[in-house]
Amino acid sequence: MLRLRRIPIDTFGENVAYIHKNCSQYKANDINVPTKVEIHGGINPVYASLVVTDDHNLLKPDEMGLGIQAFKQINMPEGADVSIAPSPPPPSIEAVRRKISGNILTPGEYKAVINDIASNRYSKMEVASFLVANGTFMTTPELLALTEALAGEENHLIWEDEDIVTDVHCVGGLPGNRTDLVVTPIIAAYGLPIPKTATRGITSSSGTIDAMEVLAKVDLSPRKVTNIVTEHKGCIAWKKTLGIAPADDILLSVEKAIGMSMQQQMIASILSSKIAAGITHLLVDIPVGAHTKVRNMPEAMKLRKNFEYVAGMLAMEIDVVVTDGSEPVGQGIGPVLEARDAMKVLRCKSDAPQDLREKSLFLAGRMLEFDPQMKGGQGYHIAREILDSGRALEMMNRIIHAQGRASPPILGHLTRDITASESGLIEEINNERISRIASLAGSPQDKGAGVDLIKKVGDTVEQGEVLYRIHASNPTDFAFANGVAEGYSGYDISRRKTATYDR
Amino acid sequence: MLRLRRIPIDTFGENVAYIHKNCSQYKANDINVPTKVEIHGGINPVYASLVVTDDHNLLKPDEMGLGIQAFKQINMPEGADVSIAPSPPPPSIEAVRRKISGNILTPGEYKAVINDIASNRYSKMEVASFLVANGTFMTTPELLALTEALAGEENHLIWEDEDIVTDVHCVGGLPGNRTDLVVTPIIAAYGLPIPKTATRGITSSSGTIDAMEVLAKVDLSPRKVTNIVTEHKGCIAWKKTLGIAPADDILLSVEKAIGMSMQQQMIASILSSKIAAGITHLLVDIPVGAHTKVRNMPEAMKLRKNFEYVAGMLAMEIDVVVTDGSEPVGQGIGPVLEARDAMKVLRCKSDAPQDLREKSLFLAGRMLEFDPQMKGGQGYHIAREILDSGRALEMMNRIIHAQGRASPPILGHLTRDITASESGLIEEINNERISRIASLAGSPQDKGAGVDLIKKVGDTVEQGEVLYRIHASNPTDFAFANGVAEGYSGYDISRRKTATYDR
Repeated sequence: MLRLRRIPIDTFGENVAYIHKNCSQYKANDINVPTKVEIHGGINPVYASLVVTDDHNLLKPDEMGLGIQAFKQINMPEGADVSIAPSPPPPSIEAVRRKISGNILTPGEYKAVINDIASNRYSKMEVASFLVANGTFMTTPELLALTEALAGEENHLIWEDEDIVTDVHCVGGLPGNRTDLVVTPIIAAYGLPIPKTATRGITSSSGTIDAMEVLAKVDLSPRKVTNIVTEHKGCIAWKKTLGIAPADDILLSVEKAIGMSMQQQMIASILSSKIAAGITHLLVDIPVGAHTKVRNMPEAMKLRKNFEYVAGMLAMEIDVVVTDGSEPVGQGIGPVLEARDAMKVLRCKSDAPQDLREKSLFLAGRMLEFDPQMKGGQGYHIAREILDSGRALEMMNRIIHAQGRASPPILGHLTRDITASESGLIEEINNERISRIASLAGSPQDKGAGVDLIKKVGDTVEQGEVLYRIHASNPTDFAFANGVAEGYSGYDISRRKTATYDR
Repeated sequence: MLRLRRIPIDTFGENVAYIHKNCSQYKANDINVPTKVEIHGGINPVYASLVVTDDHNLLKPDEMGLGIQAFKQINMPEGADVSIAPSPPPPSIEAVRRKISGNILTPGEYKAVINDIASNRYSKMEVASFLVANGTFMTTPELLALTEALAGEENHLIWEDEDIVTDVHCVGGLPGNRTDLVVTPIIAAYGLPIPKTATRGITSSSGTIDAMEVLAKVDLSPRKVTNIVTEHKGCIAWKKTLGIAPADDILLSVEKAIGMSMQQQMIASILSSKIAAGITHLLVDIPVGAHTKVRNMPEAMKLRKNFEYVAGMLAMEIDVVVTDGSEPVGQGIGPVLEARDAMKVLRCKSDAPQDLREKSLFLAGRMLEFDPQMKGGQGYHIAREILDSGRALEMMNRIIHAQGRASPPILGHLTRDITASESGLIEEINNERISRIASLAGSPQDKGAGVDLIKKVGDTVEQGEVLYRIHASNPTDFAFANGVAEGYSGYDISRRKTATYDR
């Protein structure tokens, strides 16, 4: 037996076990390849990757250390007796192998893989293998099976008295696209339930939840979500705290680490969480643009068909809209800036970003038409009425109050204006570049960091005029963001003074 | 700037950087996803995955730690000034993304990926993604491009005075298949140069180099290999120390970690190292069997065609033979036991495993026919003459002496006999099971560990008779191996007393 030690090292989503080179139980001396072990002593075995140290300060030969996450899982005090054994490969890894060889997997195989991932039996390398194997080729029945496996057996939110429970979800890739914060209060104010669950930024500079957290608490229990939606019809909650699909978090964190978003995985991830949240009617927003996640219409159509197929098999009503993803939406990129923009729209301020307002009204209009009572084509007008009358703002304040108001973070005090290197017409703003600059500035972990766009596509600028302002709080982050923005601002400016599409 | 510290933690092939939660330079507080950084201060930047600790004993806020491997790479003393910056994704990751989406990659893209992997710019997750993306689908020109990228620009071994430089390589998966140790001295004794380079066990319980290391030193410099082969015609050297294809080592270690061997990757890995070693004539051995790497003839044929295509484009003569992989070759599984079997064959002992002898003669015979002077069909007979005359043994002793004799490790003193649970005929021995038991017993890191097969397919046994003996040195390993062998021995015994194929 070895004595348990907590090793205060955070490896972000991977279980790690530490033993001494001269470990008294496990022969570590000769290990020269990554090894997986199972640790016994707690209620359930904990699976971890093994690393070896010869530092006596860190660990003695009769001790075994667990990193922060694995120590939490074993749920035993320091000093407890544990034992360690080599862990055979998770049984479902054979399915991954079969998938790589071009086979079609069964629903049972998908379930087994997802269960093993949820139990931390897959290393990050194995999770990446599963993601990529699916990413190269998946049939629609496989996609359905993966979605059902992720959704699990039971709904986490139950709406007994509602025939229609709505949600809206953007597939992402478009900076500043915080329409959720406007659409949700409009729909709730109209009277349709909308228990919106969302994630933090996955491969992007900010997600819906990062921005909502500027205004309110987002880590709500399933019970709290149910209560808030029952009373106010709407809420905007962090998906993770609902305990929906633990495997999904691991898959997302690996996608983030490899900087790749697999489309089929995204469909399964979105739809499984909507199923578990009891959603009956879903609007999906697919922005299309050269520098966003979905690059062209054929890709968007393929994605739409897949969404429709899986949702149909799961008896969920779905409306998939393809929107303009050619430049960022709104003005601010980063949680504080995005929350500011959304609140300006809800407050009907004259300087509110009009593109964010119009897109939100368009989406809300489509969602209102889920109501069988709504006369076809009236959705947009009703949505505008709700927004312009102040009822959406009032609802947003009620939702914020119900979730618990957050102490608002401050906009990053380190600022830098990026200016036009020549005069002309702004032809294009590169979403990926702007997103990267906002990320380097510290977004979304640093909520006040980001990029505030002063000019948008179609504007003309004089040389030296400000294109956008970088905000940061941390000098190192600030320097990184500035360095990248100086290399290439992300703005393409042509000498022509008017847009070609104006002619 | 931060002060450099060496953190004595071994993470096996991944560069890891450690910073304190309150790091004075890098804002670590908010990191919640795996992050890659580059460390500046040395001659070249070192790339690493970042982990965060709040343990003051391990690291102070103004220090940055590097794990054993990364510390070696930065090549600076402890206390040196270093700085740390977020590392953008390696540029070539876009090619991996394109491959996942079904695109055909160019030779330039393969080169870029392999270079970035060699510079440690890929995380293990990204390496796994590349392997799996290739594993799902690759054209033959892509396979050629990958092989050339792995081979690099220059040959590491140069043979100016030789028209024919031979080697033999088994694709693996068959325990005990140490024909290399018999074939190499036969070929060298005949007079054909054979600078054999090989690996340690990749996904198997033992490799050629693990067994050779029992007899002689295997970490030879390119210069030493050249000298030995010039003088004696043969040697058996560890591929890694030749500095051939550093990216290949990383790819192999990830394959080992995920327990998957990608066939195309294997072809590229084998042929690239042969090109770099200056081999002109190669014999490839593909064992086929239900429980080995290549499971059936169509698979073996596909593999053969691919070997022939790539070798042809690289102007290398290749002879691919498909052999019987239905049961382990020889008697011992594990470095010491395998070296013992090979030496028995070379010494023409009466108790030498006949299957190892016959297979070695068959392979050596095929290789001898690479010699244009050899009359067709004479190879086998010449090989047998060289072996039976003792010339092969004499050559092996010269090679061992030239490489440097090793202090021989001892056979594991902990033994356990696994016996037949019923009387009957041995129908099958499961290669994978036997290999797993040998691995658990400690092979190949513990050279004396392994499995000694007393009975083989076609033998009849009485209930209680010994099937095989497990050897181990470490009590924990011994217990693991026994536990698995007790569950299922790997032997399938039928009640029939004679083999069906005898009738």
